[in-house]
Amino acid sequence: MKRLGKERLHFTIGPFNEPVLRVKPGETLIVETEDAFIGMIRKPGDWKDNSRIPWGNPVSGPIYIEGAEKGDTLIVDVKEIKPLIGQGATRVASLAILSGVVPLERFLKTEIPRKVWICPIKNGLIYWREDLPLPYRPMIGTIGTAPEKQAISTGLAGAHGGNLDLPDICPGNRLFLPVFVEGALLHIGDVHALQGDGELCGTAIEMPAEITLTIDLIKGKAIGWPRIESEKYIMAVGVGKPLEDAIRIAFSQLIFWLEEEYGFDTLDAYNLCTHVGEIGIGYYLQSSVVARFPKDYLPKKRGNQIYCI
Amino acid sequence: MKRLGKERLHFTIGPFNEPVLRVKPGETLIVETEDAFIGMIRKPGDWKDNSRIPWGNPVSGPIYIEGAEKGDTLIVDVKEIKPLIGQGATRVASLAILSGVVPLERFLKTEIPRKVWICPIKNGLIYWREDLPLPYRPMIGTIGTAPEKQAISTGLAGAHGGNLDLPDICPGNRLFLPVFVEGALLHIGDVHALQGDGELCGTAIEMPAEITLTIDLIKGKAIGWPRIESEKYIMAVGVGKPLEDAIRIAFSQLIFWLEEEYGFDTLDAYNLCTHVGEIGIGYYLQSSVVARFPKDYLPKKRGNQIYCI
Amino acid sequence: MKRLGKERLHFTIGPFNEPVLRVKPGETLIVETEDAFIGMIRKPGDWKDNSRIPWGNPVSGPIYIEGAEKGDTLIVDVKEIKPLIGQGATRVASLAILSGVVPLERFLKTEIPRKVWICPIKNGLIYWREDLPLPYRPMIGTIGTAPEKQAISTGLAGAHGGNLDLPDICPGNRLFLPVFVEGALLHIGDVHALQGDGELCGTAIEMPAEITLTIDLIKGKAIGWPRIESEKYIMAVGVGKPLEDAIRIAFSQLIFWLEEEYGFDTLDAYNLCTHVGEIGIGYYLQSSVVARFPKDYLPKKRGNQIYCI
Amino acid sequence: MKRLGKERLHFTIGPFNEPVLRVKPGETLIVETEDAFIGMIRKPGDWKDNSRIPWGNPVSGPIYIEGAEKGDTLIVDVKEIKPLIGQGATRVASLAILSGVVPLERFLKTEIPRKVWICPIKNGLIYWREDLPLPYRPMIGTIGTAPEKQAISTGLAGAHGGNLDLPDICPGNRLFLPVFVEGALLHIGDVHALQGDGELCGTAIEMPAEITLTIDLIKGKAIGWPRIESEKYIMAVGVGKPLEDAIRIAFSQLIFWLEEEYGFDTLDAYNLCTHVGEIGIGYYLQSSVVARFPKDYLPKKRGNQIYCI
Repeated sequence: MKRLGKERLHFTIGPFNEPVLRVKPGETLIVETEDAFIGMIRKPGDWKDNSRIPWGNPVSGPIYIEGAEKGDTLIVDVKEIKPLIGQGATRVASLAILSGVVPLERFLKTEIPRKVWICPIKNGLIYWREDLPLPYRPMIGTIGTAPEKQAISTGLAGAHGGNLDLPDICPGNRLFLPVFVEGALLHIGDVHALQGDGELCGTAIEMPAEITLTIDLIKGKAIGWPRIESEKYIMAVGVGKPLEDAIRIAFSQLIFWLEEEYGFDTLDAYNLCTHVGEIGIGYYLQSSVVARFPKDYLPKKRGNQIYCI
Repeated sequence: MKRLGKERLHFTIGPFNEPVLRVKPGETLIVETEDAFIGMIRKPGDWKDNSRIPWGNPVSGPIYIEGAEKGDTLIVDVKEIKPLIGQGATRVASLAILSGVVPLERFLKTEIPRKVWICPIKNGLIYWREDLPLPYRPMIGTIGTAPEKQAISTGLAGAHGGNLDLPDICPGNRLFLPVFVEGALLHIGDVHALQGDGELCGTAIEMPAEITLTIDLIKGKAIGWPRIESEKYIMAVGVGKPLEDAIRIAFSQLIFWLEEEYGFDTLDAYNLCTHVGEIGIGYYLQSSVVARFPKDYLPKKRGNQIYCI
Repeated sequence: MKRLGKERLHFTIGPFNEPVLRVKPGETLIVETEDAFIGMIRKPGDWKDNSRIPWGNPVSGPIYIEGAEKGDTLIVDVKEIKPLIGQGATRVASLAILSGVVPLERFLKTEIPRKVWICPIKNGLIYWREDLPLPYRPMIGTIGTAPEKQAISTGLAGAHGGNLDLPDICPGNRLFLPVFVEGALLHIGDVHALQGDGELCGTAIEMPAEITLTIDLIKGKAIGWPRIESEKYIMAVGVGKPLEDAIRIAFSQLIFWLEEEYGFDTLDAYNLCTHVGEIGIGYYLQSSVVARFPKDYLPKKRGNQIYCI
Repeated sequence: MKRLGKERLHFTIGPFNEPVLRVKPGETLIVETEDAFIGMIRKPGDWKDNSRIPWGNPVSGPIYIEGAEKGDTLIVDVKEIKPLIGQGATRVASLAILSGVVPLERFLKTEIPRKVWICPIKNGLIYWREDLPLPYRPMIGTIGTAPEKQAISTGLAGAHGGNLDLPDICPGNRLFLPVFVEGALLHIGDVHALQGDGELCGTAIEMPAEITLTIDLIKGKAIGWPRIESEKYIMAVGVGKPLEDAIRIAFSQLIFWLEEEYGFDTLDAYNLCTHVGEIGIGYYLQSSVVARFPKDYLPKKRGNQIYCI
């Protein structure tokens, strides 16, 4: 099985990054990723030194998928995510995340208190505090294909994926991404050992990780935005600010999908999503959203077949 | 058991509405409510005639709770919700709800298609279509106490409750509301047989209903915003636009609650909500939000005791 | 000339407030108003005591306009605004206004610095600091007619007017307000001696004032939102959050107005507003907006005739 | 004088674009730019063919400024803007711009009407319609320096400048841009013959143009966001969604500037901006904003000296 190390890291997702691995549709591979702090927070007392590296969320890759061309859809089956060093880390860096775009420290002539948690991970538990273990539910925070012309910061999300921070991108689930350039150029990083809805303080339990993935390709079929499929749901992703717009985008995508692939009338799909639709929120200040539709209400079950597209 | 009929309906929640029933803390009662369409949509072909009544979301009440005074907290235990006429109704009224504040019909010189669904309810199922039954999961859409000076439209939500449209206000759960005036003046209406996250098209499966409630009172303890408690969660409600602000309000309330009642340090509570917090969205254009914290991670289990306040 | 004192103040605008003066269409009158601090900040060292009165923005009135009925439009010509006590006051109360809905003081366990400025007004200048006089450009911050059912806080704005905080509501300009109830019930208060776009810190130079107004009435013609007319512009008001929605509302109103009254095709009006439209922002966290169209580009000049409706 | 033609166009602003011209600080040069439609709309009946080129807003450049390094500030004095072909063009492409992110045409199974205006420009007038000439007030819509790692679409704006669509970037005014990479790499395009506040329908009067600029450099002084200086104002630019956040960013920058360069106390600057601050809005769905402070209220006049930094 091919394995991609985390020696080469990028802070953008784009067509200018040189591929470091080539895989064929159908291949399973392992990707190692660094954490969002670029490994600068490993023990109590550590802090991320922005004067050294002002960016975060490094991604491994890009991976070149053979045969992928503009207008195809890339399939990423997330098989397994393991911690690389047996621990994760989290912190409170700034209340600005809770309170918005204004640099409060500068206004108040004061420093916001900083706090770091180093969290051992063992036996399916994350020891946020020794007496308060949390469940290990790993997910990929940042994953995307190269846009055609732009090189987009790994701090941002969009139609190409990117910093989606959606807990639904986890082992057992299938992610669909649009392909914009030859080879697709898949970038992956920013794994979270656990993250709640909205990623309130902006920093989940971040960890360097080893991800097992299977890659596949749907030729000649394009999607406008990423999609996700789990055992229970089909899901459409939307990104936009404010969150109302992200929700509109995600549900619009879901409605068109129900129309095209499942034969629903547009207004029926619109109304039905009102009753059984669910919303998941990634990082609430980044405004990534997933709109979920339960497979139970799809017109026909199609077994293991790809539902999505 | 006292029973309040739905003869007297209001389109505002406020201190000017005359109480129609008086109950004591600890009493259980039944309240009948009209649906959001004021009963105008009962069979195929019906439509809501805005020229006759331009408002929606009528509420029954107000109920005067004896002994309630400004600064107290009202407890509403939702025991049971039954359909009054064995059916619900839903519709697509306007794409404006999906696309915002602009009156598109007028811009486009066209009429947006209208569609109504009459949905029989039996054996725990809602027949949205004969071949597509949905689960019966009833909830109260609009419930609130009178503000001190304002009379607020039943289409709006706020610190007093109102049109929250949160599926967590359902049988088995406990709602806490601030008391602003003598007697609290509880208003209730707008029951939904089922509603998804965000209430996408603005109209859930609306039904006239019979609600069984137990009322209680916490004297001398004030809360800034409504709270909800279920078997699994403590939940803080926030209302604000855009949704980012509603989320900030709800999580701020949750964090202060974890600090005051459960002894968490502020930064700890802030960080922990990042990992295990959940977000529920009421009507996404009304911007009501609930932030949930799982009881599993509260420092001590306190049995059947009120966790909340 | 009739004169309304500021003995009776209200903190809501609604149909439950008893009229204190009756005027006929065509009458000119003087209205005295208290400042937004309810007079609690008159000298250095003063502060607004929220434990005594938790509200702000008191309004005088309501004024009953004879003959006004639901569906009419009220005209308010602002003739003159004079300071009542030769000074105004302003303050920085909270950075929360700059940074949003989160109660930062509580999060940071600190107090935000408070500062008050008492500003003498003389010879057309406001002495914000002795060496930094600002121009006296008075305006009415809060003015509105009673909604049909709601009693709306004087801190809020909407289709009824209210806390618009628009510098265009000033001497020389004409304000049009919808009439929802018999007598219109006009409420007025919250005069500013000067206010910039957006009212950044939430508190302009607030002053008790004496306003000279002429009231008139257009029978049987309804408007959806307030409008303003100046020598140079016709203006449509919109209120909504986020500001993008307020802008959409204001420009939609302006476009329909250009269509109905001036014969523009809808798309022409839409495109033309792109080139010559102007935007004024009231209090940016309240999201009141005015969209202005220069009279120079209206198809025909109609002299002193009412352009508006 | 050096002249840059519009043969080489880019649809991103970034460090990967090869410089096509080198200038020294102090040099004056002429830059030709293509219009936002890439020249596809030149006569009635033309339309922009997105199947041929899916992007818009092409920029000329980049221009390499000798001696410019990361941490410097670039000065661009806009001297003159002339139409290249004696006309501009505008259109209504979609109501989506007015109504948000949802693809309405697809929902409504209808086409939104399209309309194009070809507008001759002569004697300082733009003939939007033969009988309705508008004033010629040219401005640069898109101008920016290369970010360090990202290649940002020319449809977007940010701290690097980009698609700001601010009428204040016009002849007579001075623009300050941060320098992120060696040579600064200035990109310019998307000239508007006229644009109102907010650029309502998303398309101003677009024209290919000839711009005369003088370039200068401030060594070793960094700014976080673009700034503008006119005869009457110093101005800080902010970009963010919703507009409330853009306003917060712009005013924060302005306040820190008043503090650092003009000796104002932070709270004084915050309060004073409330009274005399002005807001200009670029393209309201792109959320670029300028906060203006009138030079009249700066503590000391410094003649022709650069006020800004």
